[in-house]
Amino acid sequence: MIAEEKTYPKDTLLVKENMPANKLILLLEGDVDLIYSGGGEGAVVNALVGSIAPGEMLGVSSIIEPYVYISSARSTTPVKVVEIDSPAIRALMQVDKLMGYALMRNVAAAVLERLKYTQVELAAARA
Amino acid sequence: MIAEEKTYPKDTLLVKENMPANKLILLLEGDVDLIYSGGGEGAVVNALVGSIAPGEMLGVSSIIEPYVYISSARSTTPVKVVEIDSPAIRALMQVDKLMGYALMRNVAAAVLERLKYTQVELAAARA
Repeated sequence: MIAEEKTYPKDTLLVKENMPANKLILLLEGDVDLIYSGGGEGAVVNALVGSIAPGEMLGVSSIIEPYVYISSARSTTPVKVVEIDSPAIRALMQVDKLMGYALMRNVAAAVLERLKYTQVELAAARA
Repeated sequence: MIAEEKTYPKDTLLVKENMPANKLILLLEGDVDLIYSGGGEGAVVNALVGSIAPGEMLGVSSIIEPYVYISSARSTTPVKVVEIDSPAIRALMQVDKLMGYALMRNVAAAVLERLKYTQVELAAARA
């Protein structure tokens, strides 16, 4: 099954930073925080770097090479989601490149929108 | 001409936040800061939200709808760049969708990489 509806309780780790990105998730109900651990050189622990509202996607890095999650996502309420099998989607995109192009345009727009939001937050944090 | 090599002195505003995005720029030499004005509700003025090193692109929002620059870019040294006419590239992508798909994958990867960097910076700024 390529897409499956699921529910999770509050405080579920839906995707994990630096892990292979195999799920694209559409949030239907509830709220999700994006968290960056600062693992590695930084000393930051679990800083909030964004949030996902109903109707938005998370795990877009599962559609973009190198297919590794760049942050973690944790539910801050009970959530209802659609989980999409990203390797299956990626295989479809390879076979039907017109579909691939159409989907990639949407994914790129979603990432750009999140970048814009993150830059605004960074500007505010540095003000 | 779709692509043109140009040089600019230090402190040139190469692209301007919120303006129609018509140029994709490949930085060949020099350094560029990405700046967010905080125009609108915020009181932030010209916060640094990223930087571009030689070999990197800026103005990727000229390839992604709605084709509006999300931040400004200012040279912090004299720079040598290749300026690419984005409306021409977008027209080519529409005609040759396989090329469009290939380019969009690269643009999406560049935006994701920048998002990752910006999240790390935001995490550090909030620590």
